Amino acid sequence: MSYATYAHEGNNRVGRVEKTAAGDRLIPLEGLSELGRDTPAEVLSAATERPEQAVAASEVRLRPVVPHPDKIICVGLNYRAHVGETGRALPGYPVLFTKFAASLIGAHDDILLPAESEQVDYEAELAVVIGRAGRRIPRELAARHILGYTVANDVTMRDYQYKTHQWLQGKAWESSTPLGPYLVTPAEADVSAAGIRTVLGGRKLQESDTSRLIFDVATLIATVSEFTTLLPGDVILTGTPGGVGYRRDPQLFLGDGDEITVEVDGIGSLTNRVRREA
Amino acid sequence: MSYATYAHEGNNRVGRVEKTAAGDRLIPLEGLSELGRDTPAEVLSAATERPEQAVAASEVRLRPVVPHPDKIICVGLNYRAHVGETGRALPGYPVLFTKFAASLIGAHDDILLPAESEQVDYEAELAVVIGRAGRRIPRELAARHILGYTVANDVTMRDYQYKTHQWLQGKAWESSTPLGPYLVTPAEADVSAAGIRTVLGGRKLQESDTSRLIFDVATLIATVSEFTTLLPGDVILTGTPGGVGYRRDPQLFLGDGDEITVEVDGIGSLTNRVRREA
Repeated sequence: MSYATYAHEGNNRVGRVEKTAAGDRLIPLEGLSELGRDTPAEVLSAATERPEQAVAASEVRLRPVVPHPDKIICVGLNYRAHVGETGRALPGYPVLFTKFAASLIGAHDDILLPAESEQVDYEAELAVVIGRAGRRIPRELAARHILGYTVANDVTMRDYQYKTHQWLQGKAWESSTPLGPYLVTPAEADVSAAGIRTVLGGRKLQESDTSRLIFDVATLIATVSEFTTLLPGDVILTGTPGGVGYRRDPQLFLGDGDEITVEVDGIGSLTNRVRREA
Repeated sequence: MSYATYAHEGNNRVGRVEKTAAGDRLIPLEGLSELGRDTPAEVLSAATERPEQAVAASEVRLRPVVPHPDKIICVGLNYRAHVGETGRALPGYPVLFTKFAASLIGAHDDILLPAESEQVDYEAELAVVIGRAGRRIPRELAARHILGYTVANDVTMRDYQYKTHQWLQGKAWESSTPLGPYLVTPAEADVSAAGIRTVLGGRKLQESDTSRLIFDVATLIATVSEFTTLLPGDVILTGTPGGVGYRRDPQLFLGDGDEITVEVDGIGSLTNRVRREA
């Protein structure tokens, strides 16, 4: 199954995604306004569909798949090619940092370029959404805690990221980070070796596959849940492959009017316009 | 004024603190169950007191002053003596990282020592609570956004903090971080040069004053609100002075049965027992 969180005619809904020849349709689920803390796996699978209220996905505004996660945990330096381009040593433990819920935007919303940053960069990432609470989850039981997968563009203001050795102020800008378009449940998702890429203006800038993750999804769930309880709706961004703009020669950053696509095969594709903040 | 968030006879309440010769009394405010997102300054000052329901502070369980902040932003390396003991350069921009709401505990709750860490350390800190939302708040207007001040012990698992160059996994352990006892409003708080200290088993381990903050409270509010909207209930931990256990010779860490006090003069004092997690 796939699910979306969307806004339509002033209402926030969760819908099951139905693929049709004419495009995706969203079948709203009774009583659910967004994926998150209140939609653990058993709630989602038991929800009543309202097919008479179905709409074309093209007619709605997709919201971030999880608009208000309790936690967003991001992983840095989790593909060898990206570690290599940064010149750092391979990590022996996942490099963890956070974003805020306010950082998130929908799959087709504009990525805002703040006036303060001259180095806004892209990062294609596989994202995992938690469906069942757990603390100290053993790696071999981690799959039980996954609600599904989605795609993130971990947009990063490099000039802010490197102001100190801690990255928060480069990672947590408001309305910077597309998350979507849909949540794809594990039964329909094969993330063992899914292609992942970034395309900007027809040019492929990142290209890898998720088999190259240094710390896989189960390891990340075990690692994070060691120190804090993972809750339904929590999001883990698993890290980006090589090819980020900051490490290219010459460097390349997002500019006003750009259209950028990040995608994970079998999970989804995000295309966002980049717009200078008013 | 001072306010507390507390639990009494199964109810969560917000109370105004009344100092009496017989000890502090808490006068509950109608309709408020906790300080946070829903208690901006104007809500707090307009709330109706229920003096007939007043209780002695000693009879209640103090909860974290803000139990569920949308954001907890922490500042590292913000006193010269602490920067010096770490051997790092003076930062030109605040060193920012986060904790999760689940990290917080009340003023008299036990600090849990997880089985996984052998290096649980203390950090006395002045904490600021936001009372009015704002983005890109100019430094000179920052005072308008402060609901009040409180005290935090930014308990840190050093062996986890230094697993990578990002600190999250050392800072965000569940049920580690006392925040309280009360929120003290700016009218009653002078934090321009308030003494701040840590005492463990009668031994003074940290002693400084808040005039020595490298980045003062107004600068921190301006800095953080540049990249994200500060919301009512958001908490900023302003950093710790020199004298942390990890940098002492010999090193000193919290042990089962310890009782640790951190305090900021005029704001409050936190005394917590340290207990090995079951």
